[in-house]
Amino acid sequence: MQLEKIKEINDIKKLSLKEKQELSEEIREFLIEKVSKNGGHLASNLGIVELTISLCDVFDFTKDKIVFDVGHQSYVYKILTGRKEKFDTLRKYQGLRGFPYKKESPYDYFETGHSSTSISTTIGMARARDLKKENYNVISVIGDGSISNGMSLEAINDIGFNKTKLIIILNDNGMSISSNVGGISSYLSELSLNEKYIKLKNKIKYSLDDTKLGNKSFKIISRLKEGAKKFLVPSKYFEDMGLTYIGPIDGHNIKEIEKVLRRAKKVNDPVIIHVVTKKGKGYTPAENYPSKYHGVSKFDKNIGIENKVDNTYSNEFGRVITKLAETNKNIVAITAAMKDGVGLKEFSKKFPDRFFDVGISEEHAVTLAAGMSTSGLKPIFAVYSTFLQRGFDQIIHDVCMQNSNVLFALDRAGLVGQDGETHQGIFDLSYLSIIPNMNILSPKCIEELEILLKWSLKQNFPIAIRYPRGSDEISLKPIKKINLGCWEYLVKGKNLTIIATGKMVGKAYQVIKENNLDVTLINAVFIKPLDKKILKEIVKRKDNILTIEDNLINGGMGNNILLELNKLNYKGNIKILGFNDKFIEQGTIEELFKKEHLDNESIKKEIYKLIK
Amino acid sequence: MQLEKIKEINDIKKLSLKEKQELSEEIREFLIEKVSKNGGHLASNLGIVELTISLCDVFDFTKDKIVFDVGHQSYVYKILTGRKEKFDTLRKYQGLRGFPYKKESPYDYFETGHSSTSISTTIGMARARDLKKENYNVISVIGDGSISNGMSLEAINDIGFNKTKLIIILNDNGMSISSNVGGISSYLSELSLNEKYIKLKNKIKYSLDDTKLGNKSFKIISRLKEGAKKFLVPSKYFEDMGLTYIGPIDGHNIKEIEKVLRRAKKVNDPVIIHVVTKKGKGYTPAENYPSKYHGVSKFDKNIGIENKVDNTYSNEFGRVITKLAETNKNIVAITAAMKDGVGLKEFSKKFPDRFFDVGISEEHAVTLAAGMSTSGLKPIFAVYSTFLQRGFDQIIHDVCMQNSNVLFALDRAGLVGQDGETHQGIFDLSYLSIIPNMNILSPKCIEELEILLKWSLKQNFPIAIRYPRGSDEISLKPIKKINLGCWEYLVKGKNLTIIATGKMVGKAYQVIKENNLDVTLINAVFIKPLDKKILKEIVKRKDNILTIEDNLINGGMGNNILLELNKLNYKGNIKILGFNDKFIEQGTIEELFKKEHLDNESIKKEIYKLIK
Repeated sequence: MQLEKIKEINDIKKLSLKEKQELSEEIREFLIEKVSKNGGHLASNLGIVELTISLCDVFDFTKDKIVFDVGHQSYVYKILTGRKEKFDTLRKYQGLRGFPYKKESPYDYFETGHSSTSISTTIGMARARDLKKENYNVISVIGDGSISNGMSLEAINDIGFNKTKLIIILNDNGMSISSNVGGISSYLSELSLNEKYIKLKNKIKYSLDDTKLGNKSFKIISRLKEGAKKFLVPSKYFEDMGLTYIGPIDGHNIKEIEKVLRRAKKVNDPVIIHVVTKKGKGYTPAENYPSKYHGVSKFDKNIGIENKVDNTYSNEFGRVITKLAETNKNIVAITAAMKDGVGLKEFSKKFPDRFFDVGISEEHAVTLAAGMSTSGLKPIFAVYSTFLQRGFDQIIHDVCMQNSNVLFALDRAGLVGQDGETHQGIFDLSYLSIIPNMNILSPKCIEELEILLKWSLKQNFPIAIRYPRGSDEISLKPIKKINLGCWEYLVKGKNLTIIATGKMVGKAYQVIKENNLDVTLINAVFIKPLDKKILKEIVKRKDNILTIEDNLINGGMGNNILLELNKLNYKGNIKILGFNDKFIEQGTIEELFKKEHLDNESIKKEIYKLIK
Repeated sequence: MQLEKIKEINDIKKLSLKEKQELSEEIREFLIEKVSKNGGHLASNLGIVELTISLCDVFDFTKDKIVFDVGHQSYVYKILTGRKEKFDTLRKYQGLRGFPYKKESPYDYFETGHSSTSISTTIGMARARDLKKENYNVISVIGDGSISNGMSLEAINDIGFNKTKLIIILNDNGMSISSNVGGISSYLSELSLNEKYIKLKNKIKYSLDDTKLGNKSFKIISRLKEGAKKFLVPSKYFEDMGLTYIGPIDGHNIKEIEKVLRRAKKVNDPVIIHVVTKKGKGYTPAENYPSKYHGVSKFDKNIGIENKVDNTYSNEFGRVITKLAETNKNIVAITAAMKDGVGLKEFSKKFPDRFFDVGISEEHAVTLAAGMSTSGLKPIFAVYSTFLQRGFDQIIHDVCMQNSNVLFALDRAGLVGQDGETHQGIFDLSYLSIIPNMNILSPKCIEELEILLKWSLKQNFPIAIRYPRGSDEISLKPIKKINLGCWEYLVKGKNLTIIATGKMVGKAYQVIKENNLDVTLINAVFIKPLDKKILKEIVKRKDNILTIEDNLINGGMGNNILLELNKLNYKGNIKILGFNDKFIEQGTIEELFKKEHLDNESIKKEIYKLIK
C-alpha cells in the first residue's frame, strides 16, 4: 500500500514512478469509498489524481503556493497534504471541508468555492512575491468551464500584459476542446503536438452530457458539455493574450506531466499548461455519466447512483415552467451552467430554441435576460442564490433601473448545508430588497411555487422567487390567490403575530400546532413589497411580533418589517430571527438551523418569550 | 447649415455625402459649444460623429435597434434623433440625459451608463427577434476599453457559439491596438488590410495618456491608454471566438463606413466591425489631451480646461497614500481604468511597480487585491462606489469570507449629480454592511480622510472608506483618534441626538449652529461596526434620534442603528433620513438633496419635529 506512506506533504517525493502510479489507483479507491459514504464531489476528483500527485511531487507546497479554482477538486490535494485520516468527516459539521480551507491546513493558501477566482488570486500572489523579492512558484489549477467566465478572462487579460512568473494549469476534462489546439506547437514541448494529440485522442474518451459517445473526431470544432460550456480553447488565444502555452498533455500520465511541470518551473513568464483529463476516471459509472457524479449524496458504490426524480423545489420549478411554456411562447429560460441543478433538463429538451445555457457567466446571463425582455420575451434566469451575487450590478443597472420584465428563479436560497460558507444562500433577501423596483416572493411549500410562478409570469416587472434546496418537511395547503404585496394569514390567534417566509413558515406552523399555541401566523409570501395593510392591523392590535427567515438579519425581511413598523410608530416588541452577521459553516441543514437558533425548539422558546 | 435640416430621425437620409461631411463639422461645433457651457462628455462624442451619422443613414432606427455601450458617447445620436433643441438642458435637473434614456426617446432602446453591458443586451434583443420571427437589425457600439471587460467577453463567448445576426461596432479610439490586426483579411472587406491600415496609420494620430506622441509604429504590440486599457484586439481573437471580423476601417470616413455597414447588414452571423476613430477629433485641446476632455465641467472653449488641483476628496486620497507609501513599502494601489478619477496619477508616477491599472475589470481587481493581501501586501482598491457593485460577490467570497487585509477607497459615494441614475453611489452602505467581517468608515471632512487612511492601513481586515465627490461645504475639525467602532461627539446637547455620517455631518452641524439648537450631534465615523457604547448611552438618556446619511434608507446606517436599538429595547422615536426606495435622477447635488429632503432646510424641519 502506497497510500500508507503518505503522512505529510512531501512524502510523495519519496515514491518511484511505479509507486506513484500504484498510489493513483489507491487514491481512486479511497475516494470512491469515502465519497460514496459521505457524499461530495467525485467525478472531478477522480479526474485529477495524477495531476495532483505530479504537482505535489514537482513543487514544494511548504513554500510554493497553489490555488484550486472552484475548489471541489481539492480532495486529492487534501489526501496528499496530511488530511487523509479526516476523510470520514468530509463535509460533516466541523469536519473536513469539501473545499480548500485555510484553518484546516497551512497548505491551503486561498479559499475557493465560487468559480473563476483563482487566476486573479494567483496573479496577486505572484506580484506580491515579486515586489517582496521572494522566490517561490504560484500555481492556479482551473477547469475549462471556469476559465471561460468573465473574471478569468479579465485576469488573463491583465497577466498577459503585465507579465510575471505564474503557472496556470488548465484542467480540460474533455468537455470543451478546439480543433486549433492540435495545430500549434509550443517551444516548451519537445513532442510533436499533432502526434501527441493523436495519441491522446486514442487514449482518452470524452463523454457528452450523460451520453456515452466514445471517441470524438479530432476535427471537432467545439464541444457541448453538460451545462453547455461554450468555450473554445485555442492555444493561439492564450498566446495572443501574452501567455506561453504548453499542451495538450495527457493528464493521467505522471511521467509526462512531471516533465512538463519541471520545464514550466523554469519559465519566467506566465505559462498555461493545457492538461487533458477524464472526469470520473477509474470508476465506470462516473466515466459514463460525469455530470451525475459531479456532486453526489451518499450511494452504494457497487450499484452507483440510482435514477429517481425527487419532489424537490428544483424539479417542481422545471416541471411548472415546462408546462407553462407550452402555451406562453414568450417564456425563455436561461442558466449559467446549472441546467440539471436548477431543474431545466426537461425544458431544454422540449424547447431547445428557448433554452440558453451561457456557461458560468452570471453577469452576462442577467443582462441577456434584460435585453430579451426589452424585445418582448419573458426570460427566466434560474440560478442558485449564492451565484446570483455575481450579477448584482446587472440586476441594479440593467434590470431594475429599467424596470425590465425579468424573472429570477432563485434556487438554493437559505442554507445549502454541506457545501458550507461559500455556497449558503443567505444574502439574497438583503441584496435584492435594497434594489428599487425589485419584487421578491417566496413559497411556503412546494405546491405554492406553481402559483407564484404563474402569477409572476403575468407581471411585467422584475421579480425574484426564492426557494430552498430540497423539499418540504411538512405538508401545507398552498395559497389560493396572489395579490401584489399581500400576505396570507395561516393561523389566527391572540397573544403574538409571527411573520415567517418560505420554509420557515412550515417550521413555525409545526411549533404552533405541536404546542397548541394561540398565536397568529402569517405567510409573508412577499418579502418585497411588504403587506402594509397587515402591518397596520398588527400595529393596531398592539401585538408583539416575531419574524422568521432563513436569511441574514441584516437587510433581510425582519429588518425591512422593522423599518416599516418604525414609520408606523409601533412601540411593541419585535424579535427578528434569522442569521447573525457571520458566515455559516458546513453541516446538515438541520444541524445548522439548530446551531443558529432557528430550529423548532429555538423558535418555540422565542414564541414563549414574546407571548404576553 | 445642414444641422437645421435635421429635425427627425431619418432626415439624415436626405443628405448627400458632402452635406453629411459638412454636417459632421457643424455637429462638432455644436458639441463644443454646448458641452463647454453645460459640462458633459466631450472627447468621446467628438470622435464618434461620422460613425453615428453613418449608422443613422444606413440603418432605420424606427425599427432597427442600437445600444451604445457606457452611453456617454450618445450625444450625436441624440442630435440626430430629434433632441437637438434640448441640448441647453443637457445633464441638468429634468433636462436631457447624458446617457441613453428610454423615456426621452423611442429610439433609445436600452439604458446604459456602466460599462460593457451592450453586447449581452443586443444578443438578448437579437434572440428575441429570431424567436418572434421578426426582421430588424440589432447593433452594439462599444469602445476598446469596454470590450475587454469580463462581461463583454462572456457575451462574445456566447454569441460566437450560439450564432445569430448581430452587428458589433468596435469603436477603437486609438488607445489599444495589436500588430495582428493588420495581418488578417476579412472576406467582407474588399480592401487589402495592410494597405488600408498603412493608410489609416498615416491619417489617424494616436495619443497616449495625456502625452502627444504622434504616430505609433505599425509594429506596436499593445497600447497603454489613460487608465491603462490592456486589451489586445487581434482580429484572430474574434474569429477564433466565432465572429466575422471586418476592419479596421477609418471611423471618420463616412463613405467607407457606410459601405461596410451596408455589407454587414447582409451577413446573417454575428459581425464585428473594427472602426478606428480619434477621441476629441476636431477640437485640438481634446485631441491632445483626450482623457482630460472625457467628462468635463463647463469651460471656456477658446481657452480649454485650465489646470488646477482642486481640494477634492479624490486628490486628498491620492496625496495621502502617495505619502504613506513612501514609508510603508507594502502599500500597493489598484484601479479599474480610473487612475485620474480616483486621484492615483501621482502615485502611479512615483510607484509604477506598486500601481496596478487592470482596465475596466472590477471583479478581477477585488480578487487580485485579495490575492496580494494573502502574500503580505496592503492593497488599496480605489474605485467609484457605483462601480464596486460589479465586485460584490468577490468582496463576499474572496475578501470578507477570508477576512483579507484589503482596503477599499470608495470614491463618489452618495450623490454624484449630473451623471444621474446609473452613477449615484447610494447603494454602498447597504450592500457592504450586510457582508460579515466588513468594516466601513467615512470621514466627515477632507482632513479626516488622512486620519482614517492612516488608521486603516494599520489594520489587517477588510475595510471600506467611503467619501463623496468633490469637496466640503464647511470646515470642520478632524477627529483626533480612531478606535474601532467608536463614534465622535461633535456637539453635546439636550433634546435630541443626531447621528450623521460623512458629508451629512457638516450639514447637520450647519443647521445646529445657524439655529442655535441644543441637541447632540454625533459623527458616525464607523458605519460598521456601530458604536454600541454610545447607542446604549442614548437609550439610557431616552433621547429621540435622528440619523442622516447620503445612502438608501433600506440597509443603510440608520437601518442598522434601528436594528441595534431594537435589540436594546429602545422605545423612543427614531427618524431615519436617507434616500427612499427609488433611483435618483440627474441634477446638481444640491438640487437633488433638496428634492430628496436632505437639504439643510429639510434637516432643520426634521430636527424640530423630534425635539421633545
